[in-house]
Amino acid sequence: MDTFPLIATGVASTSLNGEILAIRYTKIVCKNDHKDEYESLDSVYQQMEKDGSDFVKLSKTEGQIVKERQKFIVHKINKDTSIEDVKDAYLKLHLLSMKLVKPNTINLEGIFSALPNVAWTNQGPIHPNDLDELRSEYDSLYVRSLDKFPCLTDYVIPNGVRIADANRVRLGAYLSEGTTIMHEGFVNFNAGTLGPSMIEGRISAGVVVGKNSDLGGGCSTMGTLSGGNNIKISVGEDCLLGANSGLGIPLGDRCIIEAGLYLTGGSKVEILNPDNELIETVKASTLSGQDDLLFIRNSLTGAIQCKPNGKSVILNETLHKND
Amino acid sequence: MDTFPLIATGVASTSLNGEILAIRYTKIVCKNDHKDEYESLDSVYQQMEKDGSDFVKLSKTEGQIVKERQKFIVHKINKDTSIEDVKDAYLKLHLLSMKLVKPNTINLEGIFSALPNVAWTNQGPIHPNDLDELRSEYDSLYVRSLDKFPCLTDYVIPNGVRIADANRVRLGAYLSEGTTIMHEGFVNFNAGTLGPSMIEGRISAGVVVGKNSDLGGGCSTMGTLSGGNNIKISVGEDCLLGANSGLGIPLGDRCIIEAGLYLTGGSKVEILNPDNELIETVKASTLSGQDDLLFIRNSLTGAIQCKPNGKSVILNETLHKND
Amino acid sequence: MDTFPLIATGVASTSLNGEILAIRYTKIVCKNDHKDEYESLDSVYQQMEKDGSDFVKLSKTEGQIVKERQKFIVHKINKDTSIEDVKDAYLKLHLLSMKLVKPNTINLEGIFSALPNVAWTNQGPIHPNDLDELRSEYDSLYVRSLDKFPCLTDYVIPNGVRIADANRVRLGAYLSEGTTIMHEGFVNFNAGTLGPSMIEGRISAGVVVGKNSDLGGGCSTMGTLSGGNNIKISVGEDCLLGANSGLGIPLGDRCIIEAGLYLTGGSKVEILNPDNELIETVKASTLSGQDDLLFIRNSLTGAIQCKPNGKSVILNETLHKND
Repeated sequence: MDTFPLIATGVASTSLNGEILAIRYTKIVCKNDHKDEYESLDSVYQQMEKDGSDFVKLSKTEGQIVKERQKFIVHKINKDTSIEDVKDAYLKLHLLSMKLVKPNTINLEGIFSALPNVAWTNQGPIHPNDLDELRSEYDSLYVRSLDKFPCLTDYVIPNGVRIADANRVRLGAYLSEGTTIMHEGFVNFNAGTLGPSMIEGRISAGVVVGKNSDLGGGCSTMGTLSGGNNIKISVGEDCLLGANSGLGIPLGDRCIIEAGLYLTGGSKVEILNPDNELIETVKASTLSGQDDLLFIRNSLTGAIQCKPNGKSVILNETLHKND
Repeated sequence: MDTFPLIATGVASTSLNGEILAIRYTKIVCKNDHKDEYESLDSVYQQMEKDGSDFVKLSKTEGQIVKERQKFIVHKINKDTSIEDVKDAYLKLHLLSMKLVKPNTINLEGIFSALPNVAWTNQGPIHPNDLDELRSEYDSLYVRSLDKFPCLTDYVIPNGVRIADANRVRLGAYLSEGTTIMHEGFVNFNAGTLGPSMIEGRISAGVVVGKNSDLGGGCSTMGTLSGGNNIKISVGEDCLLGANSGLGIPLGDRCIIEAGLYLTGGSKVEILNPDNELIETVKASTLSGQDDLLFIRNSLTGAIQCKPNGKSVILNETLHKND
Repeated sequence: MDTFPLIATGVASTSLNGEILAIRYTKIVCKNDHKDEYESLDSVYQQMEKDGSDFVKLSKTEGQIVKERQKFIVHKINKDTSIEDVKDAYLKLHLLSMKLVKPNTINLEGIFSALPNVAWTNQGPIHPNDLDELRSEYDSLYVRSLDKFPCLTDYVIPNGVRIADANRVRLGAYLSEGTTIMHEGFVNFNAGTLGPSMIEGRISAGVVVGKNSDLGGGCSTMGTLSGGNNIKISVGEDCLLGANSGLGIPLGDRCIIEAGLYLTGGSKVEILNPDNELIETVKASTLSGQDDLLFIRNSLTGAIQCKPNGKSVILNETLHKND
């Protein structure tokens, strides 16, 4: 059933000028799932539109400058078109992190332009230009991040997940139960894990990791946003990317990349049979999506080699009971 | 003299249901060191046991929900058996970080099961399920980490140590005076440094680094918890792991691993004499614990090579006066 | 025109003993630019010197312990000599981060000795020895960093810049408009970017990156402070350091280092012509500062190779509109 149209309610944080900086959506209602609730919210939405206001009118507002920076909001997305404004952007990021949609399945075009740069402070989101004025309002005010995207955990706390350093997972990450993101792990928006997994490396935007896979410390998955290429990288199930390794092709299931080896799509790779005899030499990209491969750099010849993967990767179960 | 039996007092943080989330132990008394004090605490402990309570009874409790989440505690460990509950777990992590015991010398079996997953917030430890209820209690509430282990510095501040990013050192780390953990450094529990050292890479659980060694930016030491092997890795004294390098064998003293080289136990290595002549080819694991080795990858042949290390590593003293 | 002499006013954070821990300079006046204002501040400064006080006297002081840890300060630097005390150190770090001087153009000798180690807490800078006493003053007190250097954003918020994880950029970083520091990026003091750039790797002390360059995830630039060499590394314009790569030579413009390749100054490199024919073999350091080079490790022979760079690096513009 289609996710769209949908309506969501939430609380917007604004700048001192009333510009929306960020939105916490607390309820998302899909028309196809809950028609009545949808229509009741839709009438509120239409009233707001008529009033020409971004915000639900409150009968009273608190006097305090801090409280005034929080406003109730209702937002509707009819069709999955490109992102027009900050309300669209936050709603789509929530859809991903609440796991209502999978990475790479919705239209995120325009998200960078729609998101304002925000100072994510210990006192909430603040417009960078307002920092000086607001500094005197607080005993202690400091910036945790100065970025268009917030931390996932500022907005959504997924069940059964560990995130050792909350700074390193963006809102828009899709994290399945049983996922552990260690201190060196990182997950961008529109990216994530489809099952239990141990993530000590970097999941770039657009990259999806299958269940029971292990991304070793400091490993890299090539992104498509900047400096990368145009092919969406993915990691299958039961895979292991070694520490400080790198991945530039989509990987099938039960594949291993040796620690320290960066496999780019253009790397030429020697294919060996189980007896370690050279069969042929191919470009790594031709191995995209194939299962049961082991990639190493031969430590005597320096050649990147690929052989059938005999070992299977077994995640340490105790590490993944995240309760 | 034996560390155990010992008794400790501290303050427990609890969930709204009264479940213990974390404990700050402020006093630890070993029977063999301070018999009288030990016995006086033991009588309090036995009273608690009789009362069937985890907590020391206070004559009054504050009305506030926040204060109620903090409770006094007395805990005893008779023998160094495996970890049974959160009280054992925190006490053993404190023993390591207070440097009362060295890494790999106490029984930490069961620690993952004993530790609950906790939301480490700017307002203290909170049960993930309590976050929604507590959000309204605070002007600003956000999650710094969602993990079983807390940051070291939330519980223990070691003397003469710098930790550039406190998120990246877990309670249970053993950090000696003169240690500097830079932003890219990381130290897991049951791991650490035995003397002054510059740590810009990752010290995995179980890994110990000797004095005057330097772990370059982003370097990796293979752990034994997940995706690694079964041999405990260690780094001797006066060693240098280059930036983005990796280590899969225990290293002796005065060894160097070239920047960017990942040395796994299974790597085949060419042994060269001081005149750069090939003597033999061995598996890296056979070089475990040997002193004065320099490991490089020959940039023309691609072979991993090992030669006698002529240069010695000298730590920059000014960087290590951490006062 | 010369930056020095100059006078600055600011607010100092002190320990409970009155020792200066850190200073936020809010105004810096160069004599050569604003002679009148300079001289008026100079008379205040001279009065302070006469009083033998580090601090401007206030008619009233607040009773609260917390407020007393903040004091007004006026400081003068006549000539660019080495750093004598914490006031010099913070003033020079501010000069860099406010972009009044470029990295490597002022004398920073003595900075490590001049800077005290500070607990950077959620409640401001605190002397590590004062933590226990101050813990009871606050509902929640925790250490974000235990280091001589603070985060850049605690003191200076540069325009048009994004810093995904504020913990990873030190005061003293020089960040030009259009710079994005991603979660894996890092910038030390006396280092930075000269124009728009995407930084997902580590900019070591003394390293400067030219405009429109891209440092891939986890890449390393060799520093000169510890474990490195003595040659200042730099990156030219329109360069790309691949993910998990490393750089040990100063790089010209339009150069590319392949993902995963660590190029040290001592690496021997095969020079190829555009037809991929070997011309000669040289030490990487002889290629310092040359433009239009592409460095790869041949994935079949394991040799590091350098060829003319045909492709040009184009930064994704949308990612760099940091407003």
